[in-house]
Amino acid sequence: MFVPSDGISGSSPERRAATALRALFTQVAARVVLEQLQGPAGPTLTGHTSYNQTAYLDLMDFMGVPMKGEGGDEWLALVMKKNHALALRLMEVREAYLEEFSWQQVAELATKETKESNTKLMRAAAMASLAASFREAPGQAACLSADDMDGGGMGPAGHGSP
Amino acid sequence: MFVPSDGISGSSPERRAATALRALFTQVAARVVLEQLQGPAGPTLTGHTSYNQTAYLDLMDFMGVPMKGEGGDEWLALVMKKNHALALRLMEVREAYLEEFSWQQVAELATKETKESNTKLMRAAAMASLAASFREAPGQAACLSADDMDGGGMGPAGHGSP
Repeated sequence: MFVPSDGISGSSPERRAATALRALFTQVAARVVLEQLQGPAGPTLTGHTSYNQTAYLDLMDFMGVPMKGEGGDEWLALVMKKNHALALRLMEVREAYLEEFSWQQVAELATKETKESNTKLMRAAAMASLAASFREAPGQAACLSADDMDGGGMGPAGHGSP
Repeated sequence: MFVPSDGISGSSPERRAATALRALFTQVAARVVLEQLQGPAGPTLTGHTSYNQTAYLDLMDFMGVPMKGEGGDEWLALVMKKNHALALRLMEVREAYLEEFSWQQVAELATKETKESNTKLMRAAAMASLAASFREAPGQAACLSADDMDGGGMGPAGHGSP
């Protein structure tokens, strides 16, 4: 199959996918760090906990900011301006997440779901065209469904059954 | 690393990635089929060519329609309503493209680019904080850059050089 070398908007499909995935990893990092900052039960008496009120509130603020730009990088740059340590933590987590992400599972899911979607779309189109043909010949359609139900013989004539 | 089981908007990162990739495959299919329909030199005298004026014009129309919904499926359903054969071809191509897509390359690119982006962001933040520290002490900054240029000794006093 010939895939135009400029692909879509000037970059190869693989490169586009990689950028989209980097954005996804940034979102996952935000979700993971938010969960860590919430902590199981807030700060302890000794203060020895991952709970960090400032970072938590900063991150909550930024969760509402849409991730524009490529791969969530602009968003991270904004976080960096507001809270340096928080941004470093997010970057660390999105890099660590690279090891956890199951590429194999994504490949399998995407393959399976693309095939299933195709089947579903074709089935829907077939049903729609069947429904349309029924609308064109309502008498026959009613007759056909009656035949299907009780073994035939009840409907009006017009479809070569003996 | 604990990744919350509901991930982002209720589905796992892998599932989200798979859906995004299906949308990408649909876009690639549209691009590939458009290229095929254009043909190298239009229809021949015998009419035996892949060039198909109706399908080409239909697809050109749909190239302007944004792919909403999951994985480009809604877009394909719209194409299906307008031109059944064209939609079947697009589905065939996106399924065939699954075999051509280089998962390995995406994994490598995403890993490399995430690490590079992190480095770039950290470098930008370091430069910004350096620039800010210069603004706080403008005399010293001017002096430092003068030192860098001509080997020192010309700037005003104030930074323990002998």
